[in-house]
Amino acid sequence: MAQTVPHPLSDLTVAEINRARDIVLGLHPGSVIDFRSIYLLEPPKSEVVPFLDLEHAGKLKASTPRPARLAQVRYDIIGGAKAAEYHESVIDVSSSKRVKHDIVGTEHHASLTIFEFQKVVECVQNSKLFQERFKTIQLPPGFELVIEPWPYGGPDQEDGDTRFFQALCFGRDTRSGNPDSNFYAYPLPFIPIVDARKNEVVRVDEPATGGGNDALDAKTHKLGVLDHCRTSEYVPELIPGGVRKDVKPLTVLQPEGPSFAISDSNLIQWQKWRFRVTFNPREGAVLHDIRYDGRDILYRLSMSDMTVPYADPRNPFHRKQAFDFGDGGLGNCTNNLTLGCDCLGVIKYFDGILTKADGSAEVSKQVICLHEQDDGIGWKHTNWRTGRAVVTRRRELVVQFIITLANYEYVFAFKFDQAAGIEVEARATGIVSVVNIDEGKTAPWGNVVSPGTLAQNHQHIFCLRIDPAVDGHSNTLVQEDSVPVPMNKVTNPNGNRYEVQAKAIETSSGIDLNPFSNRVFKVQNLSKRNPVSGKPVGYKITTPPTQLLLADPDSIQAQRALFTKHHMWVTKHKDDELYAGGRYTLQSRRENGGVYDAAARGDNVKDEDIVIWSVFGLTHNPRVEDWPVMPVEKLQVHITPQDFFTGNPAIDVPSNADIGSKLTSGACCKGDGDKPKL
Amino acid sequence: MAQTVPHPLSDLTVAEINRARDIVLGLHPGSVIDFRSIYLLEPPKSEVVPFLDLEHAGKLKASTPRPARLAQVRYDIIGGAKAAEYHESVIDVSSSKRVKHDIVGTEHHASLTIFEFQKVVECVQNSKLFQERFKTIQLPPGFELVIEPWPYGGPDQEDGDTRFFQALCFGRDTRSGNPDSNFYAYPLPFIPIVDARKNEVVRVDEPATGGGNDALDAKTHKLGVLDHCRTSEYVPELIPGGVRKDVKPLTVLQPEGPSFAISDSNLIQWQKWRFRVTFNPREGAVLHDIRYDGRDILYRLSMSDMTVPYADPRNPFHRKQAFDFGDGGLGNCTNNLTLGCDCLGVIKYFDGILTKADGSAEVSKQVICLHEQDDGIGWKHTNWRTGRAVVTRRRELVVQFIITLANYEYVFAFKFDQAAGIEVEARATGIVSVVNIDEGKTAPWGNVVSPGTLAQNHQHIFCLRIDPAVDGHSNTLVQEDSVPVPMNKVTNPNGNRYEVQAKAIETSSGIDLNPFSNRVFKVQNLSKRNPVSGKPVGYKITTPPTQLLLADPDSIQAQRALFTKHHMWVTKHKDDELYAGGRYTLQSRRENGGVYDAAARGDNVKDEDIVIWSVFGLTHNPRVEDWPVMPVEKLQVHITPQDFFTGNPAIDVPSNADIGSKLTSGACCKGDGDKPKL
Repeated sequence: MAQTVPHPLSDLTVAEINRARDIVLGLHPGSVIDFRSIYLLEPPKSEVVPFLDLEHAGKLKASTPRPARLAQVRYDIIGGAKAAEYHESVIDVSSSKRVKHDIVGTEHHASLTIFEFQKVVECVQNSKLFQERFKTIQLPPGFELVIEPWPYGGPDQEDGDTRFFQALCFGRDTRSGNPDSNFYAYPLPFIPIVDARKNEVVRVDEPATGGGNDALDAKTHKLGVLDHCRTSEYVPELIPGGVRKDVKPLTVLQPEGPSFAISDSNLIQWQKWRFRVTFNPREGAVLHDIRYDGRDILYRLSMSDMTVPYADPRNPFHRKQAFDFGDGGLGNCTNNLTLGCDCLGVIKYFDGILTKADGSAEVSKQVICLHEQDDGIGWKHTNWRTGRAVVTRRRELVVQFIITLANYEYVFAFKFDQAAGIEVEARATGIVSVVNIDEGKTAPWGNVVSPGTLAQNHQHIFCLRIDPAVDGHSNTLVQEDSVPVPMNKVTNPNGNRYEVQAKAIETSSGIDLNPFSNRVFKVQNLSKRNPVSGKPVGYKITTPPTQLLLADPDSIQAQRALFTKHHMWVTKHKDDELYAGGRYTLQSRRENGGVYDAAARGDNVKDEDIVIWSVFGLTHNPRVEDWPVMPVEKLQVHITPQDFFTGNPAIDVPSNADIGSKLTSGACCKGDGDKPKL
Repeated sequence: MAQTVPHPLSDLTVAEINRARDIVLGLHPGSVIDFRSIYLLEPPKSEVVPFLDLEHAGKLKASTPRPARLAQVRYDIIGGAKAAEYHESVIDVSSSKRVKHDIVGTEHHASLTIFEFQKVVECVQNSKLFQERFKTIQLPPGFELVIEPWPYGGPDQEDGDTRFFQALCFGRDTRSGNPDSNFYAYPLPFIPIVDARKNEVVRVDEPATGGGNDALDAKTHKLGVLDHCRTSEYVPELIPGGVRKDVKPLTVLQPEGPSFAISDSNLIQWQKWRFRVTFNPREGAVLHDIRYDGRDILYRLSMSDMTVPYADPRNPFHRKQAFDFGDGGLGNCTNNLTLGCDCLGVIKYFDGILTKADGSAEVSKQVICLHEQDDGIGWKHTNWRTGRAVVTRRRELVVQFIITLANYEYVFAFKFDQAAGIEVEARATGIVSVVNIDEGKTAPWGNVVSPGTLAQNHQHIFCLRIDPAVDGHSNTLVQEDSVPVPMNKVTNPNGNRYEVQAKAIETSSGIDLNPFSNRVFKVQNLSKRNPVSGKPVGYKITTPPTQLLLADPDSIQAQRALFTKHHMWVTKHKDDELYAGGRYTLQSRRENGGVYDAAARGDNVKDEDIVIWSVFGLTHNPRVEDWPVMPVEKLQVHITPQDFFTGNPAIDVPSNADIGSKLTSGACCKGDGDKPKL
C-alpha cells in the first residue's frame, strides 16, 4: 500500500502545514498576516467511514481514493480601517486549493494566541494610565510587579465588540533570587483592561479587597496592600525545612518493554485495543476509530470543552470565567512532558505541531505520553472448596496530556483496560486563583488560604464528547432507571422486587443524571442483539453525578455556557460540530453553535449517527490545604461494555504471579523461583 | 517501658485467646461447648484515650495502668432441651475473670461458623428428602452435585426462631478432571433448607426456572434442566484458546525498601501518618488511633456492615439477602494473600487469629497486606514564564484485605496519601449469583449471562464506620450545600454569586446526600480555628452518591437493613456499638441495635464524641461481561483535610525524577545519569 498520503485520521505534517500557509499567503498578496493556528480539518465522516471499512477489511489499495487532506487556517489580516480582520480558510493541501473562506464578523472573537498574551504584558508595563494607578500602592522592598494576562470573560453590554484582555497583577519577592518564587501569594488590587486592537490599557479595574461585611464595591485597601501577605513557596529549594527525606524510590520496571505497539505514526495497538491519536491546539489529545478485538466502539473521543466561572459577586469578578479549551492557548499551554516525572515505566511520547505567528509549523515536543500502569486487582475468585485463587492484575494503557493555564493545571487521561472499558480522567491541580483581602477579614465567596490571599469559590465544568460507533454508526442513547415496585400480591409478594425501566431517547436533547434511581446511560445498537442475553449490544456511559452551573440562568456566565444546563446531551452527528461551548467562546455573550443549539435542532437520534456529550465538574470552594499548589482532585467517566461481548473480555488475562514482589523481610515471590528475574 | 501487657489497641495473642478459652471451659464444667469465636473486646474509650494521651506525650511508664485485656467469647453449649444454647462471655484475660455473661435468646442467632456450613453440606448430601427431589432431574453425563450453603436470609413468619440454612445447588462437569471447573454455570432448581439444630433437611424449595412471561410460581423446568447450560471457565488452563500472550511483565521495584516502618507488632508509620491495625472475624482489618504529623484525626475506621439483597420476586429468592459482615464467616472467608498476586512491590503481611471449634486459637496467615503504590501525579505546577515544572508523584500506602463469600469477592482497601487524605475503597468482583432459566427465556429481574443461567439483579450496600477525633474527641458533623443566589442588584448584581450554606447537625440522625447541591459533610472541631482561614479545623467526608435500598420499606429485606435508609448517619459514640446492621444479622427480622436504633436515641451530637456512618453501594443489574468472573467495580469514600492544616500537607513531597523510567526506544531518564541505578 502506497503511503504517500497520510491516513485521514492523522495530524497534518509540518510540510502540509507549511504548504497551507504558503497557499494562504499567496491568496492575500500584499497583506500583513498574523497566523493564529493551522491544523487538520478532519474529513467528513461520510468519506472516512468507507475508508475505515476498507482498512479494517484489509482491502486498502494504493488506488483507493483517500479523503482530501484539509487544513483549517486561522489568521488576522492586519491593517486597514479595522486594524485587524479575522479570516478562516480551509485549504486542500493535496490539490493546493482553498475550499472555504470566511471573514468572521466582529461579534465573534478568534481564540487567543500566546503572542497576544505577550503583547498584553508589554502593553500594561508601558501604560501611563496603569502606572498612575500603581503609584497608589507601595510594594514591599525587593518586590516587583508581575502581570498575568487572562481572557476578558463575558463582556459587559457597553463593551461592544471590542477585543479586550484583563491582566491580573501580583507582586513578586525577588530577594531570594529565585525566578520561581511564588508571586500568587501577593495579589494586587488592579486589573488593567487592554484593548487588543488599540494595544493600550483603556481602564484599570480596582477590585475591592474587603470582606463579607463590607459593601461589594468598598475600596478598603491600604497603601501597603501586600504588607500582611506571606510567602508561600512550592519549588523544593524554597520550602522551609526542605522536602521530605523518607520517600524511598518506587519505580516501574518493564524488562521486556511495553505491551503496546505503535505503527503508521499514530496507530496504537494494545491488548486487543486499536485506535489512533491526534493532537490539536483546541482539544489536546483526540482519539479516533477505537476498536476492541476488531469491533467498532467509538469513532472519536475528546475533551470538548470546559468552563471555570468564579462566584465572587464583586465587580469585575463576574468576568473571571475561563473557557480553557475554547478561549485558546491550549495548544501552547500543553506541557512538554518529561521522562520520569509525569508517568512511570516505559513511555512513548507524541509530539504536537503548533503554528508560529508567521504561519510556519513548529514542533512541540512530547505533548502526549503513552504508558502502561498497574491498577490493582482486575478480577479474582477463590474456590473455597479447593483453595484455588485465580487473581489477575488490572493493567491500563494511559494516553495523557497536561495543560497549564496561567495559575492552574489539568491532567487529562484516557485509560484503556483489558476488560474493554475506557476511563476518562480529569485531575485538577495547580494554584487556585486568588485576590487580595484586607488583614483579618473573611468573605463568604471564598476562603483565606494565606494571609491577605482570598481563594474565590468557583466551579470547573467539563464536557467530554463521545462519538460512538457501537458495532456501527446507527446507535441509540437509552436511559435506564432502577425503581422501586410497591409490595403487592401479584408481582411483588415479598417486596424485594425492583424494576429496571429503559427509555430510548428519540429526539436530540439534554438529560440529567439521577443517581438515586441509579440512572445509567447506554449507547445501544438496537439492530444487533447479544447472542447470550438477547439484549441489544451496547456500551454504558457512567458519569459522576455532579453539580451543574450555579450562576443565575440569566447571568452572562450561564448564557455563555449553556452546555452546563444538563449532564448528558445527545445530538445527531454533524461534521466539525466538536465544541460543547460553541466555536467562539472568547468574549462570547451567549453560547453559539454549541451543544445547546445542536440539541435544539430536535433531530431524530434513534437509530442514528449520534454524539453523546457528558457534562461533569467540581464545585471548588477552596480549602487551606489547596494552597499553594493543590493536591489533585480527580473526576472520572467510565465507558464500559454492556452486553456487547459474550463474557468478561478480561477472562483471558493471565494470572501469573508478579516476579518482582518482595516481602519486607527481603524474601521474593515464589511464583517463579526464589529470586526475581530482573 | 515494660511490654508485658500488649497495647490496648492490639489483637489478643494466641496465648490470650487460649487462656480465655480455658477460663470459659472452667466456668461450664461438664458441658459440651462448641466455640464460635474469641477475639478482642476493645477497652472502653474512656480508658483508651487517657492511655493514648500519655503514649503520644511520651509519658508512658511501666507503672502506667493499662486497660484490662478483654476477650469476647461466643460459644454454644450443646445438649439439653434446646439442643444448643448460645452464650456470650467477656473474659478479662489479665485477671482471669469473667466480667460479663449473657445467654442469648432464640430470637437472635449467633453468627454462623464455617463448621456449620460443613455440616449443611453433609446434611444435604445425606438427606433422603433431598435425594427424592433430586431424582426429578437428570444431570448430564459426568456431572456431579455441588452444594453451596448460604445464610437463610430473612425468615418467613412461620419459620419462628428455628436456625435454618439454605443450600444452593449446582452441577459440576467432572470430565476435565479439574476440580476448579466452574460449577456456577450449571445452576439447579433446588434449595434444600436445613434445620441446623436438628441437623436435617426439613424442606426443599424448588424455585421456578421460567422467564418474565411465566407466572411467578410456575415450575417449568425439564428433566434435563442443565442440558442447555454451557461451560464457562475462568481458571487459565480451562479457558478455550488459553490466556493472552501479549501482556509483558510490569513490576514495581523498591530498591531501598518500603517507606513504611512497623513496630510494636501493629503500629504503622509512613509519611507523617501513624496508626494501628487489628484484625477481627467480623470487620476484617480495623484501623485505630490514626494521626498525621502528631495530630489526632480518627479514633477508629472500619467497614461496619454490608447487605446484598436480591430482587427476583419469586419464592424463595426474597431470602437471598446476605449480610456479609454480620452473618459470620468473614474471618474464615478472608483470603490468605499471596506474594506477587494481590499487590506489587515490597509487601508486609499481617496474620489474623481465628478460633477453632474447640476454642483454641489458629493463626490465619497473611490476611492483611500493606504496601505502597504510585497513583500518578500528586500535584503539579509549571511556571509558564520560566518553564520550570514542579511535579510530584502521588504515593499511597494501602492496607488491603479480601474476602470470598461463596461465589463472590470483595477487595477492601484503606489508602493513605501524602496530602493527609484517606481513601477507603471497595472493589466488587467474583462470580455473580445465578439461577437456572429455561432455554430461550429472559426475565426482567435479571440477565441471562450464559445459556440457562440467569444472574439476578441485586444491590450491594456498604456501611463504613468512621469514629473521628479531629484534634480531639469533641466533634460536630456539618453539612454544607452550595446553592444558587438569584441575581439581584444588592448582593448578586452579575448573577455569578452562589452561597455556601453550612448546618451543624445537633441531634443523632440519618441524612441524605444531595450531589446537585454539592452537599459535603465535614467533621469539625468547633473549638479550634484554622489560624489562616479562621474556620473550624475539620475533615471532609466525600461519599459516592449512590442509590439506597430499593426493596419496599415494609419488606423483610428493608426491615433487616434499616441502616440503608440514609447515606450518612451521625450518632453519639457508645462503646462496642460497631455494626450498622445490628449485632445479630443472621436470620434477623428487623435490624436491632444497629445505626438506625442508635440514631433514634436522639442524642446531642454537637461538640460531642460522635460516630459517622457512611452508606453507599452498587445497584448491580448484571451484564454479560460480568460472567464468569466479573471485572472489578470500584467504590470510594474520601476523608480529606478541610482547613485542618495551614497549607497543602504534601507540599514537601520531593519532585525528583523517577530513575527507572525509559523511552520506548530504550533511552533512560536523564534525571540521574543515563542509566537507571537499579
